[in-house]
Amino acid sequence: MFDKILIIGCGLIGSSILRASLSKKIAKKIFVYEISKKNISKIKKISSKIIILKKLDQNISDINLVILCTPMSQYKKIIPKLNNFLTHNSIITDVGSTKSNIDLLIKKKLKKSLDWIMSHPIAGSEVSGPEYGDKNLFKNKWCVIIKDKNSIKFKKITNFWKKLGANIAVMDKNEHDKIFSITSHLPHLIAYNLIKTAQDFQKKYKKNLIKFSAGGLRDFSRTAASNEIMWRDIFFSNKRNMINSIDSFIKNLNIFKKNINNFDEKNMKKILVNSKKVRKQIIELKQDVSKPDFGRENL
Amino acid sequence: MFDKILIIGCGLIGSSILRASLSKKIAKKIFVYEISKKNISKIKKISSKIIILKKLDQNISDINLVILCTPMSQYKKIIPKLNNFLTHNSIITDVGSTKSNIDLLIKKKLKKSLDWIMSHPIAGSEVSGPEYGDKNLFKNKWCVIIKDKNSIKFKKITNFWKKLGANIAVMDKNEHDKIFSITSHLPHLIAYNLIKTAQDFQKKYKKNLIKFSAGGLRDFSRTAASNEIMWRDIFFSNKRNMINSIDSFIKNLNIFKKNINNFDEKNMKKILVNSKKVRKQIIELKQDVSKPDFGRENL
Repeated sequence: MFDKILIIGCGLIGSSILRASLSKKIAKKIFVYEISKKNISKIKKISSKIIILKKLDQNISDINLVILCTPMSQYKKIIPKLNNFLTHNSIITDVGSTKSNIDLLIKKKLKKSLDWIMSHPIAGSEVSGPEYGDKNLFKNKWCVIIKDKNSIKFKKITNFWKKLGANIAVMDKNEHDKIFSITSHLPHLIAYNLIKTAQDFQKKYKKNLIKFSAGGLRDFSRTAASNEIMWRDIFFSNKRNMINSIDSFIKNLNIFKKNINNFDEKNMKKILVNSKKVRKQIIELKQDVSKPDFGRENL
Repeated sequence: MFDKILIIGCGLIGSSILRASLSKKIAKKIFVYEISKKNISKIKKISSKIIILKKLDQNISDINLVILCTPMSQYKKIIPKLNNFLTHNSIITDVGSTKSNIDLLIKKKLKKSLDWIMSHPIAGSEVSGPEYGDKNLFKNKWCVIIKDKNSIKFKKITNFWKKLGANIAVMDKNEHDKIFSITSHLPHLIAYNLIKTAQDFQKKYKKNLIKFSAGGLRDFSRTAASNEIMWRDIFFSNKRNMINSIDSFIKNLNIFKKNINNFDEKNMKKILVNSKKVRKQIIELKQDVSKPDFGRENL
């Protein structure tokens, strides 16, 4: 499919792309650029075919596809290096979780002769690092690709993700950032803040409540264990949507509080019954397993 | 262990107690009282040994242990019936998720000669109904038992839950309600309200965002699919703690919003890094599985 691909940043997502690309024979040669020495030694164990780059220099000039898998805050350091060595024959893509900010960066910093088609695979986990990568991570998952005028290169990126097993959704960058502020960014933000609230409580009352987390808190703790650099970048990059979604959420919390205060059985039950329907939709849309409790094993 | 036990309300929890009691030979005879005809036919299939009661009448007079497993809002209807027929030889317990309200009800409504030791097994799922019951539901889970002056009956209730596999935690009713407002009730309340926020967004922008819920929302949808009657009762019963915990949580959300607005990398990273530690503790305390993504299967 490609002669040479380069994965920049090889953590959970990068190494999953790496494994899937090896398995699907996506490229004749796969290059990896990764700054963590610890990660490099883990990556080397995946396959002897991987070529580890020590620098982003002239060795990347004839790469056909570059996939940026670093935290988004690294992009502005990497773009000047791509500008120096890449040619018009390459395609750049990324896996960043927000898109308007990247679009802005591309417009500001990327050499005009280079093409960057933005993508965002909706896959991941609370763990980080190449050792957790999985060649099936993208299988049957959505990969959002941002609309682009360059139809040939757009098609190539689409085919790349399809080959890795993903289903394609095409969106405008603003639409993307709005939708994922609700389906992904707000849930993570809430999980972090719920854990913070539990920690505050624990300090204040000097009670160990974490040991009783099986009643609900534990689910949130998984989400709140996600990579802090990745998520800090997302919250800052999607600032406007995050603030709007926090405000909408607080509005609902205040209505709910009022319902509790007024013993408003009717309105409360309506909210609870309606929520239940969403779970059913999610399972029907094959966005989650149907087994109760995620099929989680008894401890 | 007991001659005769009676389970009142036989959904997920009641039928799990039923199954575990049969399996552990907890009683010579097990009676069940359940108002849903649909549930009764499901319960009959569990074992031919179960005796289904049609009424709470003189047939319950010599029951040694009564376990209330209905939604808490039903207790005030059931207590007068227990008053009519139970004797001092019986013990009453319950599995309600809040305790101060039940204590109040006991003091107001229960005949003085009867003893009620309150308990709360920290186990459950988003699904409801006797078909989902599991004899191992309480195995290695906490069961909170509320302190009581009647040491003989307290001991009997403790042994009952131990036999079902639970680990015992003894608490004061107010301490219980405070702790579980954070570890269980607030997480559920938040999950319901996050789903509500997503539904509002969907209506407003006419976008199908549920199909992209794999990025985080899907976890919350599981919690928000929990039984609406049970949870309405909990939110109302634990009113004061719920309002306090919503306020603490909103306070944290507003600080986080400010951190986003100010691009305050340092403070935000601190919150995110600290949250991660809780996940580790939860796994060490064996309150959740250690496998990434709950060991959830790829779809």
